Amino acid sequence: MIIVLKKNADEKKVEELKESFLEKGLKLHISQGMNTLLIGLIGDTTELDEEQIGAMEVVESVKRIREPYKKANKSMHPQDTIVDVCGRKIGSGNFQVIAGPCSVETKEQMIEVAQDVQASGAGLLRGGAFKPRTSPYSFQGLGKNGLELLLEAKKATGLPIVTEIMSPSHLELFEEVDVIQIGTRNMQNFELLKEVGTVNKPVLLKRGMANTLDELLMSAEYIMAGGNENVILCERGIRTFETSMRNTLDISAIPMLKSKTHLPVIIDPSHAAGIRFMVEPLTMAAIAAGADGVMIEVHNNPEKALCDGKQSLTPEMFDDVMKKVKKTTEFFGKVM
Amino acid sequence: MIIVLKKNADEKKVEELKESFLEKGLKLHISQGMNTLLIGLIGDTTELDEEQIGAMEVVESVKRIREPYKKANKSMHPQDTIVDVCGRKIGSGNFQVIAGPCSVETKEQMIEVAQDVQASGAGLLRGGAFKPRTSPYSFQGLGKNGLELLLEAKKATGLPIVTEIMSPSHLELFEEVDVIQIGTRNMQNFELLKEVGTVNKPVLLKRGMANTLDELLMSAEYIMAGGNENVILCERGIRTFETSMRNTLDISAIPMLKSKTHLPVIIDPSHAAGIRFMVEPLTMAAIAAGADGVMIEVHNNPEKALCDGKQSLTPEMFDDVMKKVKKTTEFFGKVM
Amino acid sequence: MIIVLKKNADEKKVEELKESFLEKGLKLHISQGMNTLLIGLIGDTTELDEEQIGAMEVVESVKRIREPYKKANKSMHPQDTIVDVCGRKIGSGNFQVIAGPCSVETKEQMIEVAQDVQASGAGLLRGGAFKPRTSPYSFQGLGKNGLELLLEAKKATGLPIVTEIMSPSHLELFEEVDVIQIGTRNMQNFELLKEVGTVNKPVLLKRGMANTLDELLMSAEYIMAGGNENVILCERGIRTFETSMRNTLDISAIPMLKSKTHLPVIIDPSHAAGIRFMVEPLTMAAIAAGADGVMIEVHNNPEKALCDGKQSLTPEMFDDVMKKVKKTTEFFGKVM
Amino acid sequence: MIIVLKKNADEKKVEELKESFLEKGLKLHISQGMNTLLIGLIGDTTELDEEQIGAMEVVESVKRIREPYKKANKSMHPQDTIVDVCGRKIGSGNFQVIAGPCSVETKEQMIEVAQDVQASGAGLLRGGAFKPRTSPYSFQGLGKNGLELLLEAKKATGLPIVTEIMSPSHLELFEEVDVIQIGTRNMQNFELLKEVGTVNKPVLLKRGMANTLDELLMSAEYIMAGGNENVILCERGIRTFETSMRNTLDISAIPMLKSKTHLPVIIDPSHAAGIRFMVEPLTMAAIAAGADGVMIEVHNNPEKALCDGKQSLTPEMFDDVMKKVKKTTEFFGKVM
Repeated sequence: MIIVLKKNADEKKVEELKESFLEKGLKLHISQGMNTLLIGLIGDTTELDEEQIGAMEVVESVKRIREPYKKANKSMHPQDTIVDVCGRKIGSGNFQVIAGPCSVETKEQMIEVAQDVQASGAGLLRGGAFKPRTSPYSFQGLGKNGLELLLEAKKATGLPIVTEIMSPSHLELFEEVDVIQIGTRNMQNFELLKEVGTVNKPVLLKRGMANTLDELLMSAEYIMAGGNENVILCERGIRTFETSMRNTLDISAIPMLKSKTHLPVIIDPSHAAGIRFMVEPLTMAAIAAGADGVMIEVHNNPEKALCDGKQSLTPEMFDDVMKKVKKTTEFFGKVM
Repeated sequence: MIIVLKKNADEKKVEELKESFLEKGLKLHISQGMNTLLIGLIGDTTELDEEQIGAMEVVESVKRIREPYKKANKSMHPQDTIVDVCGRKIGSGNFQVIAGPCSVETKEQMIEVAQDVQASGAGLLRGGAFKPRTSPYSFQGLGKNGLELLLEAKKATGLPIVTEIMSPSHLELFEEVDVIQIGTRNMQNFELLKEVGTVNKPVLLKRGMANTLDELLMSAEYIMAGGNENVILCERGIRTFETSMRNTLDISAIPMLKSKTHLPVIIDPSHAAGIRFMVEPLTMAAIAAGADGVMIEVHNNPEKALCDGKQSLTPEMFDDVMKKVKKTTEFFGKVM
Repeated sequence: MIIVLKKNADEKKVEELKESFLEKGLKLHISQGMNTLLIGLIGDTTELDEEQIGAMEVVESVKRIREPYKKANKSMHPQDTIVDVCGRKIGSGNFQVIAGPCSVETKEQMIEVAQDVQASGAGLLRGGAFKPRTSPYSFQGLGKNGLELLLEAKKATGLPIVTEIMSPSHLELFEEVDVIQIGTRNMQNFELLKEVGTVNKPVLLKRGMANTLDELLMSAEYIMAGGNENVILCERGIRTFETSMRNTLDISAIPMLKSKTHLPVIIDPSHAAGIRFMVEPLTMAAIAAGADGVMIEVHNNPEKALCDGKQSLTPEMFDDVMKKVKKTTEFFGKVM
Repeated sequence: MIIVLKKNADEKKVEELKESFLEKGLKLHISQGMNTLLIGLIGDTTELDEEQIGAMEVVESVKRIREPYKKANKSMHPQDTIVDVCGRKIGSGNFQVIAGPCSVETKEQMIEVAQDVQASGAGLLRGGAFKPRTSPYSFQGLGKNGLELLLEAKKATGLPIVTEIMSPSHLELFEEVDVIQIGTRNMQNFELLKEVGTVNKPVLLKRGMANTLDELLMSAEYIMAGGNENVILCERGIRTFETSMRNTLDISAIPMLKSKTHLPVIIDPSHAAGIRFMVEPLTMAAIAAGADGVMIEVHNNPEKALCDGKQSLTPEMFDDVMKKVKKTTEFFGKVM
């Protein structure tokens, strides 16, 4: 961390500042310029608060050299992490497709879709039991009953299940869930992050629609700091000025995250675009850019889907996409 | 709601669609053009899901004519709401200043700041006990103890207190809190919104940093649909490409929200700018644009503040700002 | 176009409005609801101004059904356009790589880089002679001399050249240039668009960094309306809140543009990311998503590049990327 | 400027880098840390290119301490600039209202509107002769004839005129224009900026809809570097994700720009909001936040306006707003 002090900063206050860093076990490197004094801090600055330092009267500006996350940081853990979900591997060359409906609706629907996506080659089953909806008047999901239907679909097919948690108090209901999803609106719901950090179960952490990649990694750090290092990052489109699609898929997040962290990175092309015909090209782009998986919405009757039908593939369309996914992952040297 | 059907849409499916609307008690107005068929829906369309309709095979596009919120809607409730907090009125010509530190730190700090801001004319006291922080390694607030210190400051001064809730399970701890704040990162934490909808206590709802005004109103609707109609909306800066300040204050949100809803609208200039010197001009702008209040960070020792010191005013600076606030609200015909 | 009239709109004014549409040769379809009157306009509404209609006292809102561009519109021209540059084909299955330095610096540099990128398989040579720079104190390009050096490089290699125009008055200098580039900051420099619409030479039109895809197509329409239908669209990253890379590549622009227009679409991964290591994965993603080409910065000495060295590949790195480009375009069924 | 070198950077290359700075007349301050070497540059770094330095192999990152603009910089010119337009003063406590139609349509319209806005107290007359329109099929302005109508309106009223230039080659037509406007889409049309830098006439420079404040100041610097220091900055709304209004007015731009530059700053509430009813509250906010003027669209028949009628005030509405502007500027200590 480099601290630039103000011209004519009060000497006594500067000395106090230096003392406070030394007390934290940091070493200082001082550089006196004609107008400015620089302090370089050497040691573990992870727990220093840039803003607090920047607020001091004598400080002109602060620049972090190393990122404020530790456990998620690639430089501390150069080998890519493989998250293992009931034998399905994600990361470090292993690619998985997570598929299923936006929301769990009926037993028949779940079992039918589960069998269909399994037949096409999906490795995990998704489905929302607790649904975050913009309007209180929209379908809110089947809740606990939805989780049970997911487990029945798992029993019928053997596919591990991925589903979203919306409240810390629901955690006990998720005991048999295989991957707990944190949705985009909860990426900075820190109480929820802390809670899922206490369990020993993979967490699929979706990027907030207006959060930077560093913020995403800090949220992963919340979970990891709690002891749960099985975090899968998911880019699902960010909010921009463009209006022709629901969100803008930040494909560059894949190589950028992979340069910063050892955690697996997957893409959700369905929520990114919000439109069915874009799911295939965005899936291909994700594989080509180095993603470790994709998460695709599939519904056996998209027109009657209780949410997000506009972006759901039919099982037939999904089967077509999966044929290309298999060839393309192979071409790019990934194992499915 | 107007539904534009696709050219050559399957007639049977169109008939089914029409039936489904009639079953919901809506009336239809059909307009057959040369290429397109339009269906206008008449009645209460609040609970219809635009996306679900848009997903249907025969549908080209959907356009809502009326907003999907009811209780927050000005057209259903033309008179502006006044939220009353222990006798302090907010809304419909009544202006309040909420002031205090970003986070509660010590008893001395809280009582000192509370007395200072009261002396300068603040009507409510703010302070964070549970703090949402980007990094798990930053100060997370004093929690329950922080709430107790706030209550002691209330006892010492009589100022009602405003503080943030971060988890539904904390609600019982907030029994003596006067205004419950929902922070920007939790604006779409729907479980939390539902929970605060069940109590009979004013809620200060901050706009998410990348949420539209309609989404803010839908989140207010969540609280109101639960039975709690005492919602105060707060614009606190949105995320844009501009990097010279922390966020971009959306001053236009004030007149736009006031055209859409009867709820009071306040501004948080401290978090919007993130820089001390901008608090005063943004406060003046907020009053001039018609806000019903402002929320200002004040710390007795900003350099040692455990969070957000860069934007906190000292009590002396706050006193200066308050002198101008009093004159300016009077000039614009507001009652403080 | 559908026009929703206000409740209780003045009947005389409504009649005048209807008349005005009839006079323009449009047919009307009227739908009277309980509260609202809808007017559907049938015919060529391209030249109608939504905002002007929306401003009328009797009008509640206006919705366009068909896009306001004609010549660029896929529905009017379903077959994909192939732009031919000296025999190099772009579009409809034909893929091209445009490579070269950000700015033209010396004769030796240009010829060396041109020979290098040709040897690696690039089809066109890029290089900036007139450079748009944020600061008036940064290197502004060699101007006319730069164009001459480009032509010498073309002579030495046979590679057609692509270079940016910054002012309508420079057009005559571009007579021997093969593809005229309109840069991101000039996407809505309408006088410049009109000017390049008058020549019979391919135009590479870069998307403005905060322009929607529909605005990009309207700018293409400016050029095409002037008679020049050889337009190549280029997505080069948009401006968002993310700070870890220079811009956010909107990979979804490829399938979305291809659904709207018959014009070829290429990607500039170098400017999108602004960082060398991301050029390869973004290039792969572009091919996978269906792009018709990429534009890559290559410099024989990136550290001494007079602009944008941070994102330039060395000829060796470019050669590596090209080996993958050849295999990947073949895998995805494109002809290079 | 502070340069952070990479760990284990090649020593010879570091020496070459240091040499290159010394050759430019800069002094170096070196700080050797445990892992990192810092170089602080002392002297005029305005002409150094951060990106070029950042691209060097041995460089980890670069941080500018001082802004890269000189003539526009407040620290070099602490006294606020007053731009004088035919005796109307803008800046340093002097407030002006610029009013008139979006586009010049007929002689009658211009003279009528000019007389109306003058009677209400406007100090300058605006009107577009050359119009930047998204669609080539929209009304493009009357061009040269429009300029003549503006001059007739000036003759009739004495109001100085403000109008937009769209091409460097039009400059000679603007000889009798009092203030040349650079529109939002041309803020980084550097050839145009250079051209208006050569004349001795006030320039009203609008912020690009996705440009940072530092980029706006760099564009002002282009004009000033050419010798024309009469630049008026104009904030007119930026592009964000919010869809309920046309643009998001960045009110914070006023205090932030005033901390960075001595140039006057005005606001265009009409284009920011794009909706009539928001013009008054945004104008009040602009005055309260410290603006030096506002620019308001007024049309004698907004429903028939050939562009942007939705946001134009009628002369009666404008008269109402002006009554409040007079009282409010007086309250805030500005001279009109």
